[in-house]
Amino acid sequence: VILDTSTLDRHDPLRSFADQFVPIEPGLIYLDGNSLGRMPLDAVEVLRRFETSWGSNLIRSWNDEWIGLPTRLAALLAPIIGADPAGVTFCDSTSVNLFKLASAAMEVQAGRLEIVSESSNFRSNLYVLSRLGELKVSDDPVAAISEKTALVSLSLVSFQSGERFDLDEVTRIAHQHDAMVLWDLSHAAGVVPVNLASSNADLAVGCSYKYLNGGPGAPAWLYVRPELIERLRSPIQGWFGDRRSFEFLSEYEPATGIDRFQAGTPPILSLAAIEPGLKMIAEAGIEQIWEKAQKLRAYFLWRIGKLAEIEPLKPAAFGSHVSVRHPAAWQVCQALIAANVVPDFRTPDLIRFGFSPLTTSFADVDEAVYRLEYILNERIWEQFPAAKSGVT
Amino acid sequence: VILDTSTLDRHDPLRSFADQFVPIEPGLIYLDGNSLGRMPLDAVEVLRRFETSWGSNLIRSWNDEWIGLPTRLAALLAPIIGADPAGVTFCDSTSVNLFKLASAAMEVQAGRLEIVSESSNFRSNLYVLSRLGELKVSDDPVAAISEKTALVSLSLVSFQSGERFDLDEVTRIAHQHDAMVLWDLSHAAGVVPVNLASSNADLAVGCSYKYLNGGPGAPAWLYVRPELIERLRSPIQGWFGDRRSFEFLSEYEPATGIDRFQAGTPPILSLAAIEPGLKMIAEAGIEQIWEKAQKLRAYFLWRIGKLAEIEPLKPAAFGSHVSVRHPAAWQVCQALIAANVVPDFRTPDLIRFGFSPLTTSFADVDEAVYRLEYILNERIWEQFPAAKSGVT
Repeated sequence: VILDTSTLDRHDPLRSFADQFVPIEPGLIYLDGNSLGRMPLDAVEVLRRFETSWGSNLIRSWNDEWIGLPTRLAALLAPIIGADPAGVTFCDSTSVNLFKLASAAMEVQAGRLEIVSESSNFRSNLYVLSRLGELKVSDDPVAAISEKTALVSLSLVSFQSGERFDLDEVTRIAHQHDAMVLWDLSHAAGVVPVNLASSNADLAVGCSYKYLNGGPGAPAWLYVRPELIERLRSPIQGWFGDRRSFEFLSEYEPATGIDRFQAGTPPILSLAAIEPGLKMIAEAGIEQIWEKAQKLRAYFLWRIGKLAEIEPLKPAAFGSHVSVRHPAAWQVCQALIAANVVPDFRTPDLIRFGFSPLTTSFADVDEAVYRLEYILNERIWEQFPAAKSGVT
Repeated sequence: VILDTSTLDRHDPLRSFADQFVPIEPGLIYLDGNSLGRMPLDAVEVLRRFETSWGSNLIRSWNDEWIGLPTRLAALLAPIIGADPAGVTFCDSTSVNLFKLASAAMEVQAGRLEIVSESSNFRSNLYVLSRLGELKVSDDPVAAISEKTALVSLSLVSFQSGERFDLDEVTRIAHQHDAMVLWDLSHAAGVVPVNLASSNADLAVGCSYKYLNGGPGAPAWLYVRPELIERLRSPIQGWFGDRRSFEFLSEYEPATGIDRFQAGTPPILSLAAIEPGLKMIAEAGIEQIWEKAQKLRAYFLWRIGKLAEIEPLKPAAFGSHVSVRHPAAWQVCQALIAANVVPDFRTPDLIRFGFSPLTTSFADVDEAVYRLEYILNERIWEQFPAAKSGVT
C-alpha cells in the first residue's frame, strides 16, 4: 500500500541524511544524483582544511595524511561493494582504470583476443575496449560468451535503460568458459548492494561522483580479486604503482598489493573530497539505502502510471534510476529544468530520473511528477526548441 | 656585486607576489617549492566556490564552467612554455600523459623500437618508458641517438642534479635521425623560459604542482606539436578524447584537436585549483621569474661557498634548484627541518634546495644558509638517526 508522501517521509529512517548535504535552492528538485551526486557538508570542511594542509603544512602533509588516502578510501568503500579492502584502491578516472585492468586481463589471456560487451554499454567503455581486443558487442552478451572470449566487460546497471545484470550469474557463466569478467559499477556502487567477493568477480571499476557523492570528476576506484593481483600487471608503470623501495634507478617492480594499479601522483584535492560521502553511506547502511531506492522508484512508477505520452522503461532487475521515453524527450527535459526539476536527457528520446536515497524524499518525487504532468498536459514543452545535446 | 639581502629584496620587482600566497608560520623557510609549490590565496577562493558550483548549481556547472577548464588552463600555460595553445591540454597525471604520448609516438615510428633516455631521469618516466619499447638508458643520451631510435625522452631539468639539457639542440639532433622527442618539463615549466614552438619539439609533458603552484597531485599537462596532432592517437580511448558527437554507439573517433589526448572525466576540484598559479606566473612574466631564479641561486651558491663538508652540484646549465652533496645528507636534512628550513632529501646523499621566485626572498636564502652553517659547524645533524627514506 502506498501512503501519502508526508507519511512515507516521516517513516523514512534515512530522512535526516539530507541535512548533511549543502542545501539547494528551495523548490529545486534534483533527480540527477546519478550524474553528479550532491555535496556533503563535510566535503566543504575537507576543502577548507587545504588552507592548512597545502597552504601552511605543505610537503609535510604528504606523509602526515595524503599518502594514506587511497587506502583509507578503499577501507570505506570495500563493505559497500562486498569486497576485501586489499583488492580495492582509488586512482585516475573510470576510463583509465578500465584501460589498465582490461589491458592486464588481455595480457594473461594469451591466445584469446575476444572481448564481449553489450550494445548499450556506456560508450567510453566500448571505446576503450575496442582498442584492446576484438570487441564483440551484443544485445545478448551472456549468450555471446564462448571459448574464444578472453574478457567479458559489462556495466552492472545500464546508464541508459537502468537494467541490471545478474552479477553472480554472468560471472559464473564467464568463468565456465575460462573468460575473465570486468564489471563497471558506476551506476550501482553506493545504492545497489553488490558482493564482489562472493560473486567471484575478477575485476571491477566505478566512478565516485554519482551515488558515492565524491564530487565532479572525482577519482575512480578499481577492484581486483585478491588472488589475481599477483598475476596481473598494469600497462602504465608509474611510480605510485611500484614497490616504493626508493632505491634509485632500480627496475620497475610492481607493488605486491593492489597499489600496483596506481600510476602517477593522485589529484589530492579531488581524492580527499570523496571521504565524506563514503562515510555517510557506511553510516546509513547499503541495505537500507537500497530499500529506500526501491520504494522511491516504485512510488515514481505508480505516480507516472496515469500519464499518457510517456513510456517508462521497467526492466525486471534495475538500479536506482528510471528512464522514460518521450518522442520530444529533449524538449520535455528542458521544460522540466525550467520548472526547477533536474533530470537528464539521454539521446535520442530518454529522460532519466535518478533517485538518491540519502537526499531524495518522497515529496520530491511527488512534486516532480506533478510538474511533469502539467508540462505534458498543457504541452508546455512545445515552447522549447527541439535542438538535442547533452552530457551522458 | 652581491649586495646585502635587504637591498636585494627591496629591489626585487616580484617581491609583492609573496603576499598573494597563504601565509606560512613565521620563521619557516620553505625551499621545497620544486616538490610542492605554495598555495595561492586565490586557490582558497577557488575551493570555496565549490560550495556553490558543486553544492547548489550541481550538474549545471558542467556546461557553465567545468567543461571549458582544460582549454582555459591551456591558454594560460601556453605562453609560459612558448607553445601554441592549440597544442596544450590538462588531464591525468604526468606518468599517464607520458604513457599516452610515448605510446602514440611508438605507434607511428613503426620499425623502430628503441627509446633513448638518460640514467638519472626521473624513475617514473623510466618505468613507464621501459614498457613501451627497448629502453636505452645512457649517461650521454644525445650521443646514444641513432637511426634505430624511435623516441628520445628526457627531463629538461634533472630532478636530481638540477642540470638542464639544451632543448633546441637535442631536438635538432633527434630530428636529424628521424627520432621524435618527448620532453618532461616538470622541473622547468613556470620558472625556466622554454620555447616549445621554436625548438620544434614534438611532445612534452609536465606536472602542475611544482613551480606552477597547482596543488598536491594537480592534474598534469601535455603538449603535442600542432602539425603532429592528427597523426597521433591516444592508446586510452576515453570519452573525453572522442569527437563528442553525442551520437550513441558510434565508433570512437578521436577529437580533431589536442582534446584527443584527454581520457576520462577530469578531477574538477584539483583541475580548478591550477588556475590561480598560472595567472600569477603570467602576470609576473616568465623572463622576470627566471631572472630572479638565477639571482637566488647565485646568492645561495656564494653563501655556501665557504662551507666545508658539502659539495654543491653546479652544472653549466641549470634550473631553479641546487642539489648539495653531503655524506650524511639524510641527517643534515632532518636537522634542517627541525630548524624550520624545508629542503628535501634525494637518495643517497643529496639535499635539494629549491628557489621559487614568486615566494622565496633573498633573506630566506640567507637565513637558510645561516642555519645550515650552524648545523654543520656544531655537528647538530649527528643528533638525528641515519635512517633513509623520502618521496622523490
